[in-house]
Amino acid sequence: MSAPGRDGRARTGRRSGDSGTRDAILDSARREFAAHGYDGATIRAIASGAGVDPALVHHFYGSKERLFAAAMRLPVIPSEVIATALADPSRGPDVTLGTHLVASALALWESEEVRGRFLGLLRSAMTSEQATVMLSEFITEAILVPVAAVTRDTDPASAPFRASLIASQVLGLAMTRYMLRLGPIAGASVDDLIAAIGPNIDRYLTGDLD
Amino acid sequence: MSAPGRDGRARTGRRSGDSGTRDAILDSARREFAAHGYDGATIRAIASGAGVDPALVHHFYGSKERLFAAAMRLPVIPSEVIATALADPSRGPDVTLGTHLVASALALWESEEVRGRFLGLLRSAMTSEQATVMLSEFITEAILVPVAAVTRDTDPASAPFRASLIASQVLGLAMTRYMLRLGPIAGASVDDLIAAIGPNIDRYLTGDLD
Repeated sequence: MSAPGRDGRARTGRRSGDSGTRDAILDSARREFAAHGYDGATIRAIASGAGVDPALVHHFYGSKERLFAAAMRLPVIPSEVIATALADPSRGPDVTLGTHLVASALALWESEEVRGRFLGLLRSAMTSEQATVMLSEFITEAILVPVAAVTRDTDPASAPFRASLIASQVLGLAMTRYMLRLGPIAGASVDDLIAAIGPNIDRYLTGDLD
Repeated sequence: MSAPGRDGRARTGRRSGDSGTRDAILDSARREFAAHGYDGATIRAIASGAGVDPALVHHFYGSKERLFAAAMRLPVIPSEVIATALADPSRGPDVTLGTHLVASALALWESEEVRGRFLGLLRSAMTSEQATVMLSEFITEAILVPVAAVTRDTDPASAPFRASLIASQVLGLAMTRYMLRLGPIAGASVDDLIAAIGPNIDRYLTGDLD
């Protein structure tokens, strides 16, 4: 699999040997992320493990998050999906931010490819302590931090807590709908789920939590 | 481990051989639940697999839920915990039902034994399709049905959906706090979590979901 370029499209190799070099970098990345977590792994150590210059890793992948996404074969870059959802000009004036976030998450997960990768990551995090640490750190950096940035206006001190409450509801939705497949929530329409859950996300974003 | 009696205390064997018979019943129960799910397994088939009369299984365990709890070594009977939480006379007039349900779930999960068994069940459900079906059916019968009964006054048609939304938030809380251990939610006090999440559960119980 080739990594997405900065323009979002898959890049094609620009010289022979690119594909082997990329594979070596991704193999090294998987080893480093597993061994040291998302926070502890460094581009420098990943480059060294692949026998290439760190500048080449930056050139190919641009950021640690993009490198992680490529190594884990995530079909999307989470922080970019969130940034798009938060800035989406198609969101009408009557659509609250919480409702729009739930709709964006469901739009992703209703795709079988995205859901498969996501459930695979979650499954490995449930069964391996190393994978738990890695996924938890990645979710914090790639999802909680951008969501917390939105809630900062309400109350800077509670922003990380608010973001983690949103994660608890959105990940709980994914677990009950796609993994456990609990009857009423697995069978509900996307629209019914958005209407039911969106306002609860709005409360976590800006409501009174005391 | 001996199963809890109807009075909630562990029973002691009343004749020699009880313990071997109980073990045979629990072994047979684990096989039947795994093979046929929670709904599909019958007391009759479990008794037959253990070479005993169905009346003896009823005598020892009283109900399929209690037999399941004993076979899975759950330290509590979920529907009884929920019934107690819903009827708890210590709940003051200012404590909403949603808040009280979150407090009851957290009180259980803060116990290492309960949390360990619960995460073990969830882990097996993430990694085995048979275990997924079994746990989903059990959650439906033992948790969603009693919760839905409470919300029936609001809107009978939406009661199962409301109960499953509550499950999505409460299970998502367990996953992010105890399994992924996401920083802000893993480090929050129980009181802060109750205050933050309780009102969202109240909305799922009785609020407008359209």
